[in-house]
Amino acid sequence: MITVGIVGGTGYTGVELLRLLALHPGVEVALITSRSEAGRPVAELFPSLRGHCDLAFEDPDDQRLAGCDLVFFATPNAVAMDSVGHLLEQGVKVVDLSADFRLQEREVWEHWYGTTHTAPDLIREAVYGLPEINREQIRGARLVANPGCYATAIQLGFLPMIEAGVVDPSRLIADGKSGASGGGRQARMGMLLGEAGESFRAYAASGHRHGPEIEQGLRMMQARSAPQVTFVPHLVPMVRGIEATLYAEITDEAADFQAIYEDRFRDEPFVDVMPWGSLPETRSVRGENTCRMALHRQPGQNRIIVSSVTDNLVKGAAGQAIQNMNLMCGFDEREGLKAPALLP
Amino acid sequence: MITVGIVGGTGYTGVELLRLLALHPGVEVALITSRSEAGRPVAELFPSLRGHCDLAFEDPDDQRLAGCDLVFFATPNAVAMDSVGHLLEQGVKVVDLSADFRLQEREVWEHWYGTTHTAPDLIREAVYGLPEINREQIRGARLVANPGCYATAIQLGFLPMIEAGVVDPSRLIADGKSGASGGGRQARMGMLLGEAGESFRAYAASGHRHGPEIEQGLRMMQARSAPQVTFVPHLVPMVRGIEATLYAEITDEAADFQAIYEDRFRDEPFVDVMPWGSLPETRSVRGENTCRMALHRQPGQNRIIVSSVTDNLVKGAAGQAIQNMNLMCGFDEREGLKAPALLP
Amino acid sequence: MITVGIVGGTGYTGVELLRLLALHPGVEVALITSRSEAGRPVAELFPSLRGHCDLAFEDPDDQRLAGCDLVFFATPNAVAMDSVGHLLEQGVKVVDLSADFRLQEREVWEHWYGTTHTAPDLIREAVYGLPEINREQIRGARLVANPGCYATAIQLGFLPMIEAGVVDPSRLIADGKSGASGGGRQARMGMLLGEAGESFRAYAASGHRHGPEIEQGLRMMQARSAPQVTFVPHLVPMVRGIEATLYAEITDEAADFQAIYEDRFRDEPFVDVMPWGSLPETRSVRGENTCRMALHRQPGQNRIIVSSVTDNLVKGAAGQAIQNMNLMCGFDEREGLKAPALLP
Amino acid sequence: MITVGIVGGTGYTGVELLRLLALHPGVEVALITSRSEAGRPVAELFPSLRGHCDLAFEDPDDQRLAGCDLVFFATPNAVAMDSVGHLLEQGVKVVDLSADFRLQEREVWEHWYGTTHTAPDLIREAVYGLPEINREQIRGARLVANPGCYATAIQLGFLPMIEAGVVDPSRLIADGKSGASGGGRQARMGMLLGEAGESFRAYAASGHRHGPEIEQGLRMMQARSAPQVTFVPHLVPMVRGIEATLYAEITDEAADFQAIYEDRFRDEPFVDVMPWGSLPETRSVRGENTCRMALHRQPGQNRIIVSSVTDNLVKGAAGQAIQNMNLMCGFDEREGLKAPALLP
Repeated sequence: MITVGIVGGTGYTGVELLRLLALHPGVEVALITSRSEAGRPVAELFPSLRGHCDLAFEDPDDQRLAGCDLVFFATPNAVAMDSVGHLLEQGVKVVDLSADFRLQEREVWEHWYGTTHTAPDLIREAVYGLPEINREQIRGARLVANPGCYATAIQLGFLPMIEAGVVDPSRLIADGKSGASGGGRQARMGMLLGEAGESFRAYAASGHRHGPEIEQGLRMMQARSAPQVTFVPHLVPMVRGIEATLYAEITDEAADFQAIYEDRFRDEPFVDVMPWGSLPETRSVRGENTCRMALHRQPGQNRIIVSSVTDNLVKGAAGQAIQNMNLMCGFDEREGLKAPALLP
Repeated sequence: MITVGIVGGTGYTGVELLRLLALHPGVEVALITSRSEAGRPVAELFPSLRGHCDLAFEDPDDQRLAGCDLVFFATPNAVAMDSVGHLLEQGVKVVDLSADFRLQEREVWEHWYGTTHTAPDLIREAVYGLPEINREQIRGARLVANPGCYATAIQLGFLPMIEAGVVDPSRLIADGKSGASGGGRQARMGMLLGEAGESFRAYAASGHRHGPEIEQGLRMMQARSAPQVTFVPHLVPMVRGIEATLYAEITDEAADFQAIYEDRFRDEPFVDVMPWGSLPETRSVRGENTCRMALHRQPGQNRIIVSSVTDNLVKGAAGQAIQNMNLMCGFDEREGLKAPALLP
Repeated sequence: MITVGIVGGTGYTGVELLRLLALHPGVEVALITSRSEAGRPVAELFPSLRGHCDLAFEDPDDQRLAGCDLVFFATPNAVAMDSVGHLLEQGVKVVDLSADFRLQEREVWEHWYGTTHTAPDLIREAVYGLPEINREQIRGARLVANPGCYATAIQLGFLPMIEAGVVDPSRLIADGKSGASGGGRQARMGMLLGEAGESFRAYAASGHRHGPEIEQGLRMMQARSAPQVTFVPHLVPMVRGIEATLYAEITDEAADFQAIYEDRFRDEPFVDVMPWGSLPETRSVRGENTCRMALHRQPGQNRIIVSSVTDNLVKGAAGQAIQNMNLMCGFDEREGLKAPALLP
Repeated sequence: MITVGIVGGTGYTGVELLRLLALHPGVEVALITSRSEAGRPVAELFPSLRGHCDLAFEDPDDQRLAGCDLVFFATPNAVAMDSVGHLLEQGVKVVDLSADFRLQEREVWEHWYGTTHTAPDLIREAVYGLPEINREQIRGARLVANPGCYATAIQLGFLPMIEAGVVDPSRLIADGKSGASGGGRQARMGMLLGEAGESFRAYAASGHRHGPEIEQGLRMMQARSAPQVTFVPHLVPMVRGIEATLYAEITDEAADFQAIYEDRFRDEPFVDVMPWGSLPETRSVRGENTCRMALHRQPGQNRIIVSSVTDNLVKGAAGQAIQNMNLMCGFDEREGLKAPALLP
């Protein structure tokens, strides 16, 4: 049994960590922090946890956190970087669900996140927490940077064809769509039900932070050439779920894409390749730590199409964070992540 | 370990049984039947079960079903009544999720369900499967009639005040609202997303089948007088969830309703009374076998208001069926039903 | 041709006034004010008005407003009361879409709106703008208090039976449901798509501001006794639309409710009584200035049920405001309000 | 004043034609046909038309139709082709909203629509009804093939860059997303609110009928080379609206795309080019006959991105049909199509 802490627990990734950890037999959540809600019972803010969680939010306290085996940061960007170093020194492992340690080039991070990085030394130490490409490094890591939600669905969708070198990595397109929970639990006009309901739109079409993260991930997969991805995200009038439709130019006409994908992910517990021509739905992974995908090709075209779906709060955030924790702490990688998706 | 069968598994209650039973340590699903989908892998129809369920649908076969310890009927109404008797004779226990055995007066059933009942003898034997009022009878039952979704939320919401005799049972009103999954997985024009999306309406306002079921349940709670409920259901443009707002005339001004409710449900594992004046959301029980409720009273009025929420597919159907199975088969009543709700 | 001004145009009622007035042949919108968005083109904030509205928001300016024939206040509550008097003195007519002049008893208003009323003299002058009960007074009014959205649907739904004296006015129940636009265009956590989407809940169940407004309206309809309404509003995961299900105890068994309703509303251009037993959908009035309703009675019960639907932004706000303007300014009452609803 | 008939009026395009024509001062709808609903008042099936439409559905009758000036076919595919010829001979103009005359190569049509074309002679005569490329031909046409909903949004989005020859026409990608009304008013399992609500998925990813239609349209725009489009449609959990995100490889680095688009569409009444970098929402055109679009380019990439939105039932169907009718019958092209969109 290990004890974990959650820093910044009032957002969607915080409540999702609590939901999933309630089913993990080897973990006890010792504390959950929030400056704004300190003193308030967690189950009062999130009534879904009534009967499942007796904790109250508390002010962040370094000493209390240092008593944990592992701490999850579910904070806004540019918060974790100020606290992680201290915890690591105390022997605490850290999974950061924010973006602070996702980009390995400090300048790129500072450009996209608009502020100075206060822990540049830790950037290099941090392991990018996509187990499907970094499993062994994650096992040995003290600090894991949990990938972004879009980045997870898109990197996994591109992974086998990029590794196999059967498409042109410089001409990739990823058309992403996300439910509103991807925008976080913050009161913003554009995310009101009255504004975003019964409507659909692109956003950040001129460039989104997950773009460089995706390209960095693709570089990890192959060293031959610099990948380039055009990534356009869209807001779907629903709560949970990400779908990404990926387009790539085939360079090896002989390649059997279906076989390449099935082979690559055969032993992956949380990636599911459907039969050729299938059409994954986001609801098929609602609440589950799975990335499900299927391949398509249109007659007479030399372009491969992948539709990849995840639950943005699970494989795209809290579920993957627990998967990383399982690897870092020696649990079975699937522990606590076995419940099927909620369909319908 | 017991083995169970599911008859009629292509609807929403079928897939929900499979989702929940996947987490139950004492149950193995031995077979699941469907005439229309016989031979098809379950996970092909319901991709959320890929990796969780290796079964294929099969044609109903009495012998195969007779080999189970317990069989769930997730069939349309007026199907189970033809098969249950044979199974009971073979020593198989049955939980019927359809309406066939819910009404104890055959004539009333035949009026509302529009056909002749083919197993009238079993009506009397069947135990109405609302554990909060019939727990002991359920433990000893061979045949349990699982309550309707509205009926569950509304009966539980009225229960303590009716038992305590502090309101007028002849003037009850239940304004119910349900997500679209309550209408079942059948292709009907009015349930299309294009027809029922971004809109709200009442239905069956002149009388709904759950009306007599609710009144029957209220009679079980007190014998003093005939309860009368005006029940109007509404269709909400969402997938899951039921909310019922209940109105009753207070007859005992001295009654402490909050205390009456908390006392009555203190030991109930699946009923949650929130603090006075709270506002339960359907999402707080999404995927969970809980009925959550809160009480209100408006200034200067002698009327008590209860807002009661459930997941229509869980406490309103498959979850309650498993709760009944647990009681019938000697499991801990909460087994397999411990996962928190999916919020957001 | 008259000229009108809109004060506080950045909310949903503001944009809805512009949408509807664009089709009114006798009205020119001369100015629209907003302190926060002054200088910004209206069509930049509301792209649906690109090509339809060339105005920019401007700071409120008494002189500019005084040049209008009529001014709509689409401001938050407790704003209009500070400015209306000055405009009336200048001979400008006013329709106030906020709640400032809806309640005729100052103390009740101050209780529910939590502040001191700064124009108590005008409360008495203001005419409650429900044309179906106050048409003649509205024609002669300088200041019209446009009714609340719930209040409109509920008062119209109760109107004929209260006037006819065929139900008990002291035991009325109104179970209301509204889309999210009823909550206004303000960034509030609980109204996020991520919070309010795919969920349903009651709110203000212990008392809502429209309760006293409804009771006041019912008093206008009959003087015999003090009406009492239990009103519970609910939030529906959709953008537009209100449905109210009304319950009343029948006191005159001989009353023909359908005839009473059809007779009472026969000449009303914006109230539609459907055949007995129909089920109005909110989408059937989306974008249209209609209140549509139908009557029901359940077997063996002496209770009449009315389901009443409106578009909360049209008959519940901007459409009714234009209907009032038409009456005040001598237009055909239907002018500018003739377009059918948007279905699906 | 002209008289028009609508054949096959029980679908979404039928009711949308009636909604829009109710506002057209020069058109009287003389009859609307439906075999299945013959005799039933239109406003009974579509209550949104109560008070706006006194017609009843009637059986198709050649003589009655021949008395019209123009007939809209709002029938399923492969129906209009059997009746159009006769009407043309009688001097009736026809706008076919189905796909029967959209594809100019009979073999391609028969491949994608799976049946033999029964009026191949008329294929050549039919004018493809996208006024932005075929306005003059439409003015003189007897038979207009109204474009598909996706095809409209995507062709208009690509049009200026294809005409200008500044991108590679052989490498186009169109990622389309549509609300559920695009699937028509037919009871199909996959379109249930319970199945398609709160979820997102691609469909027809291996090839969709609008693909060849789009490529044909692009060929009309330029004769230099054969365009190739990878088109993948997706189902959005909403009722109305299409968004297409278009990706093209820039071949002329000096091209000023924004200027090209604004110049091309400056005089188009129903195409709106937003400022560079804007993000069109589907709700901004809800109910309106507008195609709204904006351009984007990501740093360091030689790819142009267009986000194009329409209401699938208006510019994507009934509105464009009326626009075509206006051209064919000598009305102002904007007549009956002036109402702003419904936002929110």
